[in-house]
Amino acid sequence: MPVNLLAPVASDLHPIAGVRIGVTEAGVRKVDRKDLTVFLLDAGSSVAGVFTQNRFCAAPVQVSREHLQSGQPIRAMVINTGNANAGTGAQGLAHARSTCAALAAQLGLAPEQILPFSTGVIMEPLPVERIEAALPAAIANAQPAHWGRAAEGIMTTDTLPKAFSTQVQLGTATVSITGISKGAGMIRPNMATMLGFLATDACIDPALLQGLVRELADSSFNRVTIDGDTSTNDSFVLVATHQAGNTPITSFDSAEGSALKAALLGVAQKLAQAIVRDGEGATKFITVRVEGGKTGEECRKVAYAIAHSPLVKTAFYASDPNLGRILAAVGYAGIDDLDQTGIDLYLDDVHVAIQGGRNPAYREEDGQRVMKQSEITVRVLLGRGEAADTVWTCDFSHDYVTINADYRS
Amino acid sequence: MPVNLLAPVASDLHPIAGVRIGVTEAGVRKVDRKDLTVFLLDAGSSVAGVFTQNRFCAAPVQVSREHLQSGQPIRAMVINTGNANAGTGAQGLAHARSTCAALAAQLGLAPEQILPFSTGVIMEPLPVERIEAALPAAIANAQPAHWGRAAEGIMTTDTLPKAFSTQVQLGTATVSITGISKGAGMIRPNMATMLGFLATDACIDPALLQGLVRELADSSFNRVTIDGDTSTNDSFVLVATHQAGNTPITSFDSAEGSALKAALLGVAQKLAQAIVRDGEGATKFITVRVEGGKTGEECRKVAYAIAHSPLVKTAFYASDPNLGRILAAVGYAGIDDLDQTGIDLYLDDVHVAIQGGRNPAYREEDGQRVMKQSEITVRVLLGRGEAADTVWTCDFSHDYVTINADYRS
Repeated sequence: MPVNLLAPVASDLHPIAGVRIGVTEAGVRKVDRKDLTVFLLDAGSSVAGVFTQNRFCAAPVQVSREHLQSGQPIRAMVINTGNANAGTGAQGLAHARSTCAALAAQLGLAPEQILPFSTGVIMEPLPVERIEAALPAAIANAQPAHWGRAAEGIMTTDTLPKAFSTQVQLGTATVSITGISKGAGMIRPNMATMLGFLATDACIDPALLQGLVRELADSSFNRVTIDGDTSTNDSFVLVATHQAGNTPITSFDSAEGSALKAALLGVAQKLAQAIVRDGEGATKFITVRVEGGKTGEECRKVAYAIAHSPLVKTAFYASDPNLGRILAAVGYAGIDDLDQTGIDLYLDDVHVAIQGGRNPAYREEDGQRVMKQSEITVRVLLGRGEAADTVWTCDFSHDYVTINADYRS
Repeated sequence: MPVNLLAPVASDLHPIAGVRIGVTEAGVRKVDRKDLTVFLLDAGSSVAGVFTQNRFCAAPVQVSREHLQSGQPIRAMVINTGNANAGTGAQGLAHARSTCAALAAQLGLAPEQILPFSTGVIMEPLPVERIEAALPAAIANAQPAHWGRAAEGIMTTDTLPKAFSTQVQLGTATVSITGISKGAGMIRPNMATMLGFLATDACIDPALLQGLVRELADSSFNRVTIDGDTSTNDSFVLVATHQAGNTPITSFDSAEGSALKAALLGVAQKLAQAIVRDGEGATKFITVRVEGGKTGEECRKVAYAIAHSPLVKTAFYASDPNLGRILAAVGYAGIDDLDQTGIDLYLDDVHVAIQGGRNPAYREEDGQRVMKQSEITVRVLLGRGEAADTVWTCDFSHDYVTINADYRS
């Protein structure tokens, strides 16, 4: 059961002028499953992406990086679920390239104008013939209104599709922003999440796009974790079709630039948080906020130590205010000169620990009350400086074990 | 159910001349539970220890460090379970000091001659009155033959006591070595394990002891992990009573010195591995061996990434050869210049991946056969150099979640 997350309503998802989406069944791993999605982008669109830092990055990640660097305008993306095409060696690279070539031939494009994406089981050969055979049906299905279907088409162990949309007024032009993402395990993105796609019809200086996508990822997908496992396939792509008719954005410091960036970040954060809300086995959504650090980096270290601790996560699952486990995680987070007597801990508004020890005014029933909620904020004050950072995570339940012990069977 | 681990047989545990042990019930957290243990050491004994690197280290860890540094000869140790006396601030320190003072007064010693140890729940006040009231009974119970009882007396969520013993012939003298340890969660020791005590009657130059205990910890307790959570209370102590009558050991390069060290390491490794075999919810004992690294440090990074991955650990639990998860963990272990095409993966003798991709000769049924075993070796060849290292861990089961969701209730 996802935590306070509803399936998107198709009519709430604004189409993006210049983007058409087709979804079909290729039978990659299972029959009767919409497992192949293509995005078709109008000429003139700009595309930027960030990808996993996992050194075992998947073949499609390697090929997408190459194609973005080739300088050729990207005109289509092809995404399969059921197989990650990772840990597949030279054969996997050949399969990713062959998929691009097949789609390019049908669209009258060069293979470098296609970005491929895969998600699913690692170290199994990609059934590339079935994927290529299904491409014509995916192209024939392409419609601007298919964002909801795309969100379904890229799911693996997700229980709900994830899609968010917004509009922002830039002068006389109404700009639309729509994005989709998927989880739901092997989630500790490093540069981007498993798969996230965000598109806008806003007109933006293409030179700004790569910096923008990195900044958006750093404040959204790069701040969520489910199990600490950084995927081989993390990819986050931003498309701008430039068709909204707004005055071109040449800086995010301007009023319009800043409004657009805030709107994009809002959707990116909702997409990233949706992955956590639908994390494998999740029953609670936890915000870990660390303040008073010397640097943002040390705040993140502490936040991730808490967010990754199996002991902390099982205590949240049990609604057990066994909060000393949080202090232990702070202590091993890797800040060598940390002084435990400077540390305070809050659970929502409840002041649990003061100066490294239990707050004399803390009552277990107050901790218990907060632990029973479905949304909880852990706040750690390091008392060392002015930096702060936030990470979002979920609890660790029996269902996580069940899902991952049964994933392939 | 612990993995291939039996309860020690009391008659197999050699007493150590100069060491007497008393165990009693103090009612720290539960009634009818032998939860207080004292070690009484003859005058002339030497003691060295290593302690957790967790910055939230417990009050008894801080006091033990102080007392070892005071230069006063250590003559007794006092250990309680049920309460870790960690995250307890200034009051916790006062409690640890008060316990030492009370025991010292009864033994006619100075407080600095006592080392205190605690294990159990974090951030709850230590019931120091109950502990001090029980000290006379613990002292009255002290016997050289009580190693088995001590192993029981320090248990928390352990399902079996852990004690190992051996003898080694040094010239005409028979030297005895006996040790105990406990786990079973919050186990990713950094310098030492939750609690480990090793004693020998060998005569060793006391100046060698601190270096020896660190070296023993580095090759035993510092190579095991259950959940990646480094405890606030890790402590590993080595006692030498010098009463065996052997020619004093002045170097571990000599034949006798090297034989003694090997015997000590053998017992330390059995104690450390016993903690993993009895890890919370463990059903399998996994040896992660990483070879061909440029440095031992990078081999350890890779080994711990594998040993901590919830996805890898749940796959072992399910006996599911979903081995791409191991490659993903190798990829995110933090070696920035790792080349995936240089990597091979073995499961016992089964060659799973070659040059970063699935081995064409690999058959799923071979992987399946090994995954069903209770003892499995994962071997990763990095192909970058000559360094190697090994880490021992266990799988991740439903019972881990159950145990940690219910630990305090």
